[in-house]
Amino acid sequence: MIKATVTVTLKNSILDPQGSAVEKALRSMDYPVESVRIGKFMEVNLSEDDKNKAEEIMHEICRKLLSNPVIEDYSFELEG
Amino acid sequence: MIKATVTVTLKNSILDPQGSAVEKALRSMDYPVESVRIGKFMEVNLSEDDKNKAEEIMHEICRKLLSNPVIEDYSFELEG
Repeated sequence: MIKATVTVTLKNSILDPQGSAVEKALRSMDYPVESVRIGKFMEVNLSEDDKNKAEEIMHEICRKLLSNPVIEDYSFELEG
Repeated sequence: MIKATVTVTLKNSILDPQGSAVEKALRSMDYPVESVRIGKFMEVNLSEDDKNKAEEIMHEICRKLLSNPVIEDYSFELEG
């Protein structure tokens, strides 16, 4: 079994209203915050033991289902 | 400036319907997926140069605003 941890973030050019809201909230609480960007985090357990194959599968899964390639970037790490 | 990358995940005992939905979708697409858990990912830029102080601030921010300690766990890494 291979465990993949995926992070999906909005591309830099895309506005992040959720992040802006959190940023404003933290500033109003007097925290020294410059910027906040919010994305998604996913843990996917694959019943596949070959790391190369797992990497291929994860790229496919990320492109097809976990991210929207038009506005989002993804990255993942494999372990186990 | 210190950059903190935060991940917030549901505690293991808490049901994750969003993760289950993705898991089912991936299985129906014939991917060898065992389980999927979905959480949040946040990048926070702090205008603070002292790493110890930044760590303290991030723990406070995570507890107070970024996570719900009743059902979620958080972890973060600092860089820069």
